[in-house]
Amino acid sequence: VILVVTLNPALDVTHHVPRVDWSGVNRPVAVRARPGGKGLNVARTLHALGAEVLAVGLAGGITGAAVRSGLSEAGVPAAFTDIAGETRRTFAVVDDHRGRTALFNEPGPPVSAAEYQRFLASYAEALPGCAAVVLSGSLPPGVAQDSYAELTGLAAAASVPAVLDAEGEALLRAAPGRPAIVKPNLAELERCTGRPMSGPAGFDRAAVIGAARELMAAGAQSVVVSLGADGLLAVTGDGLWHAAPPGEAQGNPTGAGDAVVAGLAHGLALGRCWQERLRHAVALGTASAAAPAAGEFRHADYRRLLGDVRIAPGEAG
Amino acid sequence: VILVVTLNPALDVTHHVPRVDWSGVNRPVAVRARPGGKGLNVARTLHALGAEVLAVGLAGGITGAAVRSGLSEAGVPAAFTDIAGETRRTFAVVDDHRGRTALFNEPGPPVSAAEYQRFLASYAEALPGCAAVVLSGSLPPGVAQDSYAELTGLAAAASVPAVLDAEGEALLRAAPGRPAIVKPNLAELERCTGRPMSGPAGFDRAAVIGAARELMAAGAQSVVVSLGADGLLAVTGDGLWHAAPPGEAQGNPTGAGDAVVAGLAHGLALGRCWQERLRHAVALGTASAAAPAAGEFRHADYRRLLGDVRIAPGEAG
Repeated sequence: VILVVTLNPALDVTHHVPRVDWSGVNRPVAVRARPGGKGLNVARTLHALGAEVLAVGLAGGITGAAVRSGLSEAGVPAAFTDIAGETRRTFAVVDDHRGRTALFNEPGPPVSAAEYQRFLASYAEALPGCAAVVLSGSLPPGVAQDSYAELTGLAAAASVPAVLDAEGEALLRAAPGRPAIVKPNLAELERCTGRPMSGPAGFDRAAVIGAARELMAAGAQSVVVSLGADGLLAVTGDGLWHAAPPGEAQGNPTGAGDAVVAGLAHGLALGRCWQERLRHAVALGTASAAAPAAGEFRHADYRRLLGDVRIAPGEAG
Repeated sequence: VILVVTLNPALDVTHHVPRVDWSGVNRPVAVRARPGGKGLNVARTLHALGAEVLAVGLAGGITGAAVRSGLSEAGVPAAFTDIAGETRRTFAVVDDHRGRTALFNEPGPPVSAAEYQRFLASYAEALPGCAAVVLSGSLPPGVAQDSYAELTGLAAAASVPAVLDAEGEALLRAAPGRPAIVKPNLAELERCTGRPMSGPAGFDRAAVIGAARELMAAGAQSVVVSLGADGLLAVTGDGLWHAAPPGEAQGNPTGAGDAVVAGLAHGLALGRCWQERLRHAVALGTASAAAPAAGEFRHADYRRLLGDVRIAPGEAG
């Protein structure tokens, strides 16, 4: 079982509106509501890959009930800890005509210390025997910024490798927990270090490697940086690789990042070597970027892309 | 008891976003979710007036549960008929900085004939002894366009006067049911008749009266047209009145229209004469337009405005 932790899930509501009137009344031509938050996209992708998953985290109120029932409809096993607050929504307004999307992300519900402790107990109970754990997304108000270090530490104590996808404080404070893989994207790494790493000529390879090594010095066992159309750069104890998709990756970047995390966790659980792990992660990310919604991909795209991913061993920059 | 029928209720979600980025990620500074749909605004206003109300209609799914629990929290008695479909949401993005609001109204859920029949049975059971019934808002898919005529006819058979606030087909087809009061606004009346009735100099009084008389010829017992800042024009079997608020009415037009309906129904239930009924309806509408959300008003505003409403008897145009 791959345990997927989503402490701040959401009900993602998407409205497709051909030509949005920003100061008037709009009637969406298509409406979609589904469980969201980065962790749940990862869980859905793993489920679609045929992996056994268990989604855990914090959920409350009527929106929390909608998240639970949406996962149940999708066949994704879940065991959320109940909280008194109301799980958040996100709203996406997609203007298909103009090719623009506006996202409105509600803040998470307040979480009490007692609620977080109840989650921690059920998390510790679920860990033994898991093949991997994924820790993904933002922390709701009331959950300490170093919580991911605590969760990673508990996983390490149970010999379960952890994949972490977080940003800002939550990412920086997590490193001492010794996560097996940390997966920031380029923008997150730039914000984390306060240094620019991309320009008109693409990403600055030496700067990215330098920042990854800093996260490793802080405790991370490996760092995989997602570079959008440039694929993945993996800085690990076993070596350094750059895995790139064929041609230009296009589409939904959120979905792509979450699919990369799913691919990395799946590879860990299956005991794939780094190169295979990266090949699958890039193919899955590229296939998912082309899908209409996060957590979805076409298996045919995934299989076809597996053969097209270019893996290059890198020299330490 | 005033029975308030809302066949297509909604969960109204409002995001306050200071400067909306229509092609990026926004973090609302304030989020609000509450039961909506015109009928539920009327029910809330009546409840705030101290009237006994019962909200009925169709509700389903998790959003329907949110509507029910929101009414319960507000202390508004409700007895909705359960449907298999999911009650709709509306989503408002309020850009306080630019003074603009974008509204996204989901379509209603499909309603089966059996579900509508179950509603009809509970409606017929609730009618006897009611002081008035309010029929307000759109009809969800699957509910016949002449349903308001059927509901008004059942009310008439139980000697309960009906106030109808609908538009388009639902309004035109309702008249034969002989509603006591029909309350279109000027734009709805223009769409109904296909004739323009307003210009730079204000509304065309003779045209409005003519259109009202057509609705009366089709069966409506009286027509009260809401004219925004110009107040109300009432065309009735007992006479013709124009009731105007002092100065310019400002603010939320949706809330104002629903409050006018509440004021008219309250006046019917209390046996107020037309002039008193209109005075209260205008004061309530004006007070509600100044409130931040539909279904709300300040009692002090309402009481103060009661003395300022100007009522003029009109000559038949």
